[in-house]
Amino acid sequence: MSIKKNNQSALNEKAGISPPEITSATAIDQIKISRKKQPTAQELIDGILAGNITALSRAITLIESTNIVHLEKASEVINGCLPYSNKSIRIGITGVPGVGKSTFIEAFGKHLTNLGKKVAVLAVDPSSTISHGSILGDKTRMEELVKDKNAFIRPSASGETLGGVARKTRETIILCEACGFDVILIETVGVGQSETAVHSMVDFFLLLKIAGAGDELQGIKRGIMEMADAIIINKADGDNIKKAQLAKVEFNRALHLFPAKKSGWIPTTATCSAITHKGIDAVWQTILNYLELVNSNHYFIEKRKEQNQFWMMETIDEQLKNHFYNQPSIIKLLDSTKKAVQNNEVSPFAAAQILLDSYFKK
Amino acid sequence: MSIKKNNQSALNEKAGISPPEITSATAIDQIKISRKKQPTAQELIDGILAGNITALSRAITLIESTNIVHLEKASEVINGCLPYSNKSIRIGITGVPGVGKSTFIEAFGKHLTNLGKKVAVLAVDPSSTISHGSILGDKTRMEELVKDKNAFIRPSASGETLGGVARKTRETIILCEACGFDVILIETVGVGQSETAVHSMVDFFLLLKIAGAGDELQGIKRGIMEMADAIIINKADGDNIKKAQLAKVEFNRALHLFPAKKSGWIPTTATCSAITHKGIDAVWQTILNYLELVNSNHYFIEKRKEQNQFWMMETIDEQLKNHFYNQPSIIKLLDSTKKAVQNNEVSPFAAAQILLDSYFKK
Repeated sequence: MSIKKNNQSALNEKAGISPPEITSATAIDQIKISRKKQPTAQELIDGILAGNITALSRAITLIESTNIVHLEKASEVINGCLPYSNKSIRIGITGVPGVGKSTFIEAFGKHLTNLGKKVAVLAVDPSSTISHGSILGDKTRMEELVKDKNAFIRPSASGETLGGVARKTRETIILCEACGFDVILIETVGVGQSETAVHSMVDFFLLLKIAGAGDELQGIKRGIMEMADAIIINKADGDNIKKAQLAKVEFNRALHLFPAKKSGWIPTTATCSAITHKGIDAVWQTILNYLELVNSNHYFIEKRKEQNQFWMMETIDEQLKNHFYNQPSIIKLLDSTKKAVQNNEVSPFAAAQILLDSYFKK
Repeated sequence: MSIKKNNQSALNEKAGISPPEITSATAIDQIKISRKKQPTAQELIDGILAGNITALSRAITLIESTNIVHLEKASEVINGCLPYSNKSIRIGITGVPGVGKSTFIEAFGKHLTNLGKKVAVLAVDPSSTISHGSILGDKTRMEELVKDKNAFIRPSASGETLGGVARKTRETIILCEACGFDVILIETVGVGQSETAVHSMVDFFLLLKIAGAGDELQGIKRGIMEMADAIIINKADGDNIKKAQLAKVEFNRALHLFPAKKSGWIPTTATCSAITHKGIDAVWQTILNYLELVNSNHYFIEKRKEQNQFWMMETIDEQLKNHFYNQPSIIKLLDSTKKAVQNNEVSPFAAAQILLDSYFKK
């Protein structure tokens, strides 16, 4: 089984396709009409609350803008949507390239829309910055979901930093929820810092793996296995079924060595095939079991409150650092100070103090 | 096997014993003499470089002081010692209360001093702040090492924050190295954030466990197992030997499911008994094997450079946050803003912006 070396995601692949196009075929015409005038924040809020995908898409575009006027409008829309958000289940899905995330999301998403759910698929992938985030999913990989009017697929926002990308995704969740989406799937590529960010914006964290532990599994970042609420061994089809079941047993054994989760949930393992659809329904049942537990022990609401506070603090932290490292005086000093620290000429703490003194102009 | 519920550490136990006393019995007299005058920074540097334990202890006391004059002197001493530091092997030792960290450190430390090594034992335990950090180890637990003139035991510094405690320990390492200590053991209690801090100041990270996975192992913080370069199953003596060997096999299997380490090192598992001393020599051999690998692939020096940079950035980050959260305007706003975020009246990002605008007085 070969692994693609670059972090390919079906949500970040083909250039030149404008984001709202996939939401539904009829949406294109609506967009053409609505592009002629700029809707007000209130119009966008009303549209989103009415379940209008075009309004949702346009509001997300405002969130992703770098224009300060757009961002102020975005902020107004978010605050207007806030009281109507918070009602979905947010599921993080990670796994290294090659485990079949796109086909899994397609099969899982279709399973949910067939149950009458409205499903939004988002992504956190700061590497998409290179392609300016305007790239859309390879339609051949999620062709069923793309055509489903109860599904909304949006590629990763672009951004200079993971913090920026994560913030935009976090805000997009609020809008999707206000727009009536019951299930938010957030894909991430499993090889960077993004998982921690995604972990702190979802209710349930799902790790996709494939059988055959070895080189192909080495790409996943340390610590991710411990975050998982469920490990799903994908591609359990054909000759692979037996291997996948063995892998399941092995991961299950490993999970039991980990400390207990604050949620009281004992992480589960399962096999599934996104191609034959075997095991897809069981994944959803696992999530329902989880929800039953965390609703009854109040962890669900506590975790969301904690996450909100976490994001507030994170945003403050990021902006404080941005402000510091963008000061001309710091930019001037930073390289030589780093070099002095590397050469052991000054302790890391004394070096930090030099920079801080310059920043606070002591 | 019962576990003490409060984070007991032999380095933080009995009150009323002044820190330098344990370094050696004769040191007490030296301290009494030297207390009569305040040595200059240069005198302290000269003393430390000459291997004088009293000078070392006094310099550490300056590091731990909250007096600005003391801190400036400490900074001078640290910078004077820097060129002579960096020569030891720094080993982090963690494990929940009850795994026998103190007896392990005693046995391991004695093994090293018997080999002619000079061993410093430090600790990172921010919870010791409650007891003002002036507490010293229970001598009955490390009675051999305490009397050993080639060993130096210093309890955890006190501090308001983990960052503060970690910084003081980091600086203490520099002084210990300049004073000729070859092996620095840094104990931490295995139940908090401290392990991440310790992990980023050591070369080798050792996790102590005991056989019988169950409730008593649940106390360890998530993610620590993945940090470990070696997992040692302690208390492999008497009736426990077979259980310990089974636990070793199980942990070994689990470790193989983790992603590869940047160092190229494959974490090992072993059993040992701090009481019968069986397996203690093998722990040291494992560390020597590790050193051989990371010296030949240059990871050792690269990691230290990275750690230095990490500490510089961490210090900056911590101070920026301190400055922010100590502003009267922020203190006034913070509680109500947090409440608004919790009640979903404002998004975490808009809330952060309100506070940031107030801080930067936009």
